[in-house]
Amino acid sequence: MQIALLGGTGDIGEGLALRLAADTDHEVVVGSRKAEKASEKAGEYERELAGRGHEVAIAHAENPDAADGADVVVLSVPAYHLSSTIESVADRLDAGTVLVSPAVGMKREDDGMHYNPPDAGSVTALARTIAPDDVPVVGAYHNLPAGRLADLDADVDWDVAIVGDDTAAVETVESVTAGVDGLRPLRAGGLGNAAEVESVTALLINLARHNDGLHDLGVRFQ
Amino acid sequence: MQIALLGGTGDIGEGLALRLAADTDHEVVVGSRKAEKASEKAGEYERELAGRGHEVAIAHAENPDAADGADVVVLSVPAYHLSSTIESVADRLDAGTVLVSPAVGMKREDDGMHYNPPDAGSVTALARTIAPDDVPVVGAYHNLPAGRLADLDADVDWDVAIVGDDTAAVETVESVTAGVDGLRPLRAGGLGNAAEVESVTALLINLARHNDGLHDLGVRFQ
Repeated sequence: MQIALLGGTGDIGEGLALRLAADTDHEVVVGSRKAEKASEKAGEYERELAGRGHEVAIAHAENPDAADGADVVVLSVPAYHLSSTIESVADRLDAGTVLVSPAVGMKREDDGMHYNPPDAGSVTALARTIAPDDVPVVGAYHNLPAGRLADLDADVDWDVAIVGDDTAAVETVESVTAGVDGLRPLRAGGLGNAAEVESVTALLINLARHNDGLHDLGVRFQ
Repeated sequence: MQIALLGGTGDIGEGLALRLAADTDHEVVVGSRKAEKASEKAGEYERELAGRGHEVAIAHAENPDAADGADVVVLSVPAYHLSSTIESVADRLDAGTVLVSPAVGMKREDDGMHYNPPDAGSVTALARTIAPDDVPVVGAYHNLPAGRLADLDADVDWDVAIVGDDTAAVETVESVTAGVDGLRPLRAGGLGNAAEVESVTALLINLARHNDGLHDLGVRFQ
């Protein structure tokens, strides 16, 4: 499949790009608001992968061109860029393109990180309100720690809780996720259940802050 | 230490009673609103433990008597009994008795389980508003699955995220928790960070509902 990572130049996008390219045969396209930045980071990812024996081409484009023709489009942008990013690519999404939302709304206060969802109930639900009706929205990858995900030397063993109302779209994201070594896809219900998934990310940050030796945490349900 | 489990006759209380008695030297007191029920369940726990080679006496009493003199009092009651349970024992708590709140507010809807905190922000924070000022409140054990916790044949490997504003009280709960085989205490911040811990329980229930082979889930942060 062709997988476009909008905002694929940083944070969670970098880790997804590297691991999808290293572990699967999917075609990865790095998107950015700026073509030059997308090109620069794609080259960086290619060199990182080549250094580990993965001779893979990483495509790159401005976000709308990256989304064009993709089977899966991951909105790997901060929550405050979610709306504008979806709007910028909406007319380039085919019916049935799977739109994946990993962003989380959080608020840092003196006592730690707090989950801070938008009025829609969750960022994933907000994505649903903005995306074209014929484009299924799936929530996934909210609880992956960007740093260790992007470090191919780090062995990972994390669960990916997936929410969505469109079963075929959820299955697509499960399949993509299961292709990455160390990630286990799990179903967490429909889009209405996204808040309970997203809020875990604030907890992960609080746990990393308060426990020596723990950092950049993911989660396993067992 | 003397550990009173108020509402220790069911749900999370049963598992904590059995595992504390099996794995630690703490004196466990099973509390209930009804003395007869406390007596009956304590006898049942003693027989269960004896069958596994643990000859331990489990004390039992009505909740106020169980709380009297305890070093740690666990409110192992449903969220809707939290206020009345604290009020029923308030004048029997010594200054410095550690009050532990494991309850979670949830709402079951057609699409699954949702976190549903009280106006205080979390059940743990609500406990703080009701407890006497000189009694420290600690949130813990929210994310332990009652069924497998109470099954001593089940090997467990779960984290216990602990929140509290009183460092000594948090350390006490960490120490008690670390004494149980397979439980790892982790600090998740102050009482203001309890919501992000409590809401995981709704997610655990949704995951068990939607994934074949997974049931009665706990969580590991890694």
